[in-house]
Amino acid sequence: MADKDRSPVTAIGLGLMGKALAATFLEAGHPTTVWNRSAGKADDLAARGAVVAPGPAEAVAAAELVVVCVTDNDVLHAVLDPVADQLKGRVVVNLSSGSSDQARANAAWAERHGFGYLDGAIMAVPAGVGGPQAVFFYAGPEDVYRRHADALGVLGGGTTYLGADHGLAALYDVALLGVMYGLLSSFVQGAALLDTAGVKASEFLPWATAWVDTVKLFATDYAGQIDAGDRAYPANDATMEVNLGAIGHVLHESESQGVNAELPRFLHELMGRTVAGGHGAHSFASMFEVFRGADRRA
Amino acid sequence: MADKDRSPVTAIGLGLMGKALAATFLEAGHPTTVWNRSAGKADDLAARGAVVAPGPAEAVAAAELVVVCVTDNDVLHAVLDPVADQLKGRVVVNLSSGSSDQARANAAWAERHGFGYLDGAIMAVPAGVGGPQAVFFYAGPEDVYRRHADALGVLGGGTTYLGADHGLAALYDVALLGVMYGLLSSFVQGAALLDTAGVKASEFLPWATAWVDTVKLFATDYAGQIDAGDRAYPANDATMEVNLGAIGHVLHESESQGVNAELPRFLHELMGRTVAGGHGAHSFASMFEVFRGADRRA
Repeated sequence: MADKDRSPVTAIGLGLMGKALAATFLEAGHPTTVWNRSAGKADDLAARGAVVAPGPAEAVAAAELVVVCVTDNDVLHAVLDPVADQLKGRVVVNLSSGSSDQARANAAWAERHGFGYLDGAIMAVPAGVGGPQAVFFYAGPEDVYRRHADALGVLGGGTTYLGADHGLAALYDVALLGVMYGLLSSFVQGAALLDTAGVKASEFLPWATAWVDTVKLFATDYAGQIDAGDRAYPANDATMEVNLGAIGHVLHESESQGVNAELPRFLHELMGRTVAGGHGAHSFASMFEVFRGADRRA
Repeated sequence: MADKDRSPVTAIGLGLMGKALAATFLEAGHPTTVWNRSAGKADDLAARGAVVAPGPAEAVAAAELVVVCVTDNDVLHAVLDPVADQLKGRVVVNLSSGSSDQARANAAWAERHGFGYLDGAIMAVPAGVGGPQAVFFYAGPEDVYRRHADALGVLGGGTTYLGADHGLAALYDVALLGVMYGLLSSFVQGAALLDTAGVKASEFLPWATAWVDTVKLFATDYAGQIDAGDRAYPANDATMEVNLGAIGHVLHESESQGVNAELPRFLHELMGRTVAGGHGAHSFASMFEVFRGADRRA
């Protein structure tokens, strides 16, 4: 399976995602060494040609590129702190979930120990790893990324270097996760509203997905308005006053039909606060002034 | 301008949207009579060939098809109640914003007075009226809709008959509005998060819009799971436990970066309630069980 032209890779952490990463490196011909804290996770990978290291020291010694995908930042340090000095001259690519602050602190930790560090984020499910749609974000020194870009590129067609700030991968990750949960929650809310009239979610689906494409055009306008930085927020489509009335309709319809109204009530309150803040004649992009600020309760 | 092959239309209410409707009927060659409660709104329409009625009685007498677009349901009744008996045998198409309950009550009101009633909703801005992308929803008796489908069809390429239940147009309207505000709010939240690292909203935009297309695929799976009605909600992509952890990352990142964390905190609470309700191993579609139910505070 291993290809002499492919650089060796070490994969630490063999949960569902870690296994998918190691299997993808193997399939691409990279000599792959694996290790996991609890035993028995590596059997099928070994059968496919992976070398199973007896411990983290042997694992990190096996390759210059050490890809880590563990539960969280605490586990990352529990595993790598004892072998930090052996990482000197190597590159740790951290694909575990974590915050931008943790990523930046990890970069300082890596610098103290003389190894390279890239922080990454995976926008794909395990089954999608290695596929053309799988997005992998990387942040950290560009030369470190370029050195291992070929190996990292096998993990997904959407492999992307974001920039030198180690916090960028985590920030893009949570920004996109937020978009996903905002969209999915409001879709399920809409499905619940239509369910009161016997409309199936699959009947609502094509309207929702087509409408989302229209909303993308609004978002494109709003992004430009936010980036302008002049807080002008011209209401090219609808004013916040009009938007507030519209979300009020969603709220009242939800209440009167007896479905959960908490999501529209939350948004109504937030949009009302934006109007009260002087943005009644501005576009929805003026919500940026609320979202960039501190919590109301803080 | 008027075309003998085109049926006459009356348009009542000449706000921004009402004017766009009347202008579109005129452009398509429909003999168009207009009326508005406050004077002076009809001048430019008159210059383009509209007949300006002196009052609502004359307005409704001028055409079998009476399209109304006023501020709300109260204004609709303030204008039409005094002339309700003169509407006998005609068709009122209500494009004013309103609730599904109001639409159903209006249908009963129309039946008492012997006129046809369609409730509608406009998923377009005034400038988009008459264009191929403008979606107009109609709900009410199918034969009434079919009789005027040609005239109504000039208002937008996405003209759609939803069904006999008069409440459907309002329900689709608010369901889609909810999707819009859920998506836009989470997009602006994401832009605020990335702004902390100096990333422009327009840099985030292409990632968000591409990601939304992936999220559509999740929604497609979830719609089928909801419609199955068996509450199985198989976690084909991620479990609610995993989703709860992910929205927790959005929440903590927002808090630590000092941006408003209310939206992820709200979603974290709602998703946590779904997990606590026994859906930890189910997909995100299990949120339907929370959204279909009553408010927590109710």
